[in-house]
Amino acid sequence: MSTAKAVVLLSGGMDSVTVLAVARSQGYGCYALSIAYGQRHESELMAAERAACDYDAIEHRTMSIQLDAYTGSALTNPAVAVPEQAGTGIPVTYVPARNTLFLSLALGWAETLGARDLFIGVNARDYSGYPDCRPEFIHAFETLAKRATQAGDAGETYRVHTPLIDMEKADIIRLGVRLGVDYSRTVSCYQADTEGRACGACDACRLRRAGFSAAGIADNTRYR
Amino acid sequence: MSTAKAVVLLSGGMDSVTVLAVARSQGYGCYALSIAYGQRHESELMAAERAACDYDAIEHRTMSIQLDAYTGSALTNPAVAVPEQAGTGIPVTYVPARNTLFLSLALGWAETLGARDLFIGVNARDYSGYPDCRPEFIHAFETLAKRATQAGDAGETYRVHTPLIDMEKADIIRLGVRLGVDYSRTVSCYQADTEGRACGACDACRLRRAGFSAAGIADNTRYR
Repeated sequence: MSTAKAVVLLSGGMDSVTVLAVARSQGYGCYALSIAYGQRHESELMAAERAACDYDAIEHRTMSIQLDAYTGSALTNPAVAVPEQAGTGIPVTYVPARNTLFLSLALGWAETLGARDLFIGVNARDYSGYPDCRPEFIHAFETLAKRATQAGDAGETYRVHTPLIDMEKADIIRLGVRLGVDYSRTVSCYQADTEGRACGACDACRLRRAGFSAAGIADNTRYR
Repeated sequence: MSTAKAVVLLSGGMDSVTVLAVARSQGYGCYALSIAYGQRHESELMAAERAACDYDAIEHRTMSIQLDAYTGSALTNPAVAVPEQAGTGIPVTYVPARNTLFLSLALGWAETLGARDLFIGVNARDYSGYPDCRPEFIHAFETLAKRATQAGDAGETYRVHTPLIDMEKADIIRLGVRLGVDYSRTVSCYQADTEGRACGACDACRLRRAGFSAAGIADNTRYR
């Protein structure tokens, strides 16, 4: 008996960990892929490693890439401050072409593994300011994947699963709790300390805290 | 007066160096992007550096990425031999999703720079076995770029220029010579030595040599 393989993009934040739990609950044999792209902290990658272990990923790879040429983003350039109030439009934490790049790396690994399913924790509600979190982007990537690969050439299709795309943060948390996710082991904060403790003030922290509150679930995030 | 900016993917091989010369001849201010992805040799990257200098790139960046998870390709896995006879179908030198990945990196840099033009030296004739060298792939990427970016969101479009896509190798060489390209400074060989001298036997060498012959131009490649 063979299990369908899936490549799951895993940052170690609450969304991607929930996605990994979803993919496992659907019976996929999961290959977790983390990308080290000069984020401000390594604790997120350590959270990814814990999640890969907790949810029985068959393999977990971390690919490293230097994006310091992308000078405009608070996530790749230490000179750009992480905002602590909600803004309008596309936030400075946007990393140019990030999901295009991440899905490309996932696609290459999927092709190597013979997997046809990719999972990514994009969310069009909380991140509607990021163009690469919307359904139109995901569909364009699926079309590209068909044109870009040997398998596509042979008539097969790649599917990009986005189980969270239409969910509010509270829905994501309820789903994860139902699947047994321990969110205290995940790191969402843009400026977590080396032990993965959250600042409680950045965009990501505020969204996360509001999500627990709206879900009526106690927030077990480790704050510093 | 402002010059339109372009991001040019530059491997240091004859095709990408010709493309850089084309982009310059069209008046673009060129930002050359090389990708170090665990190729078998560094001499190709040194050739890229020479070309960026020869053709007045405004900036040359080399981004490093580890693709050793892509175990099937002769270009990322030293255990897979580079073939020395022409085969059929998609060759083992194919790197999964490579041009998707390269264009994604170029797109992110372009977004950072405010460039809307990307140049890539794909060639659908010599590399028809690689799905990601065909016009359909390039068009799918342009569509994706529109969906993936802030600029696309604002109604702008990215253009992926592929000046060599329909050319025979001999046409490429004639074009480059007309633009003043010194091909002895480029490295195409899949297994060049540390000084950039070519093996003369691999697929890339055979195509290159045949191209000079068909163009009626003396082959000034440095062989070992």
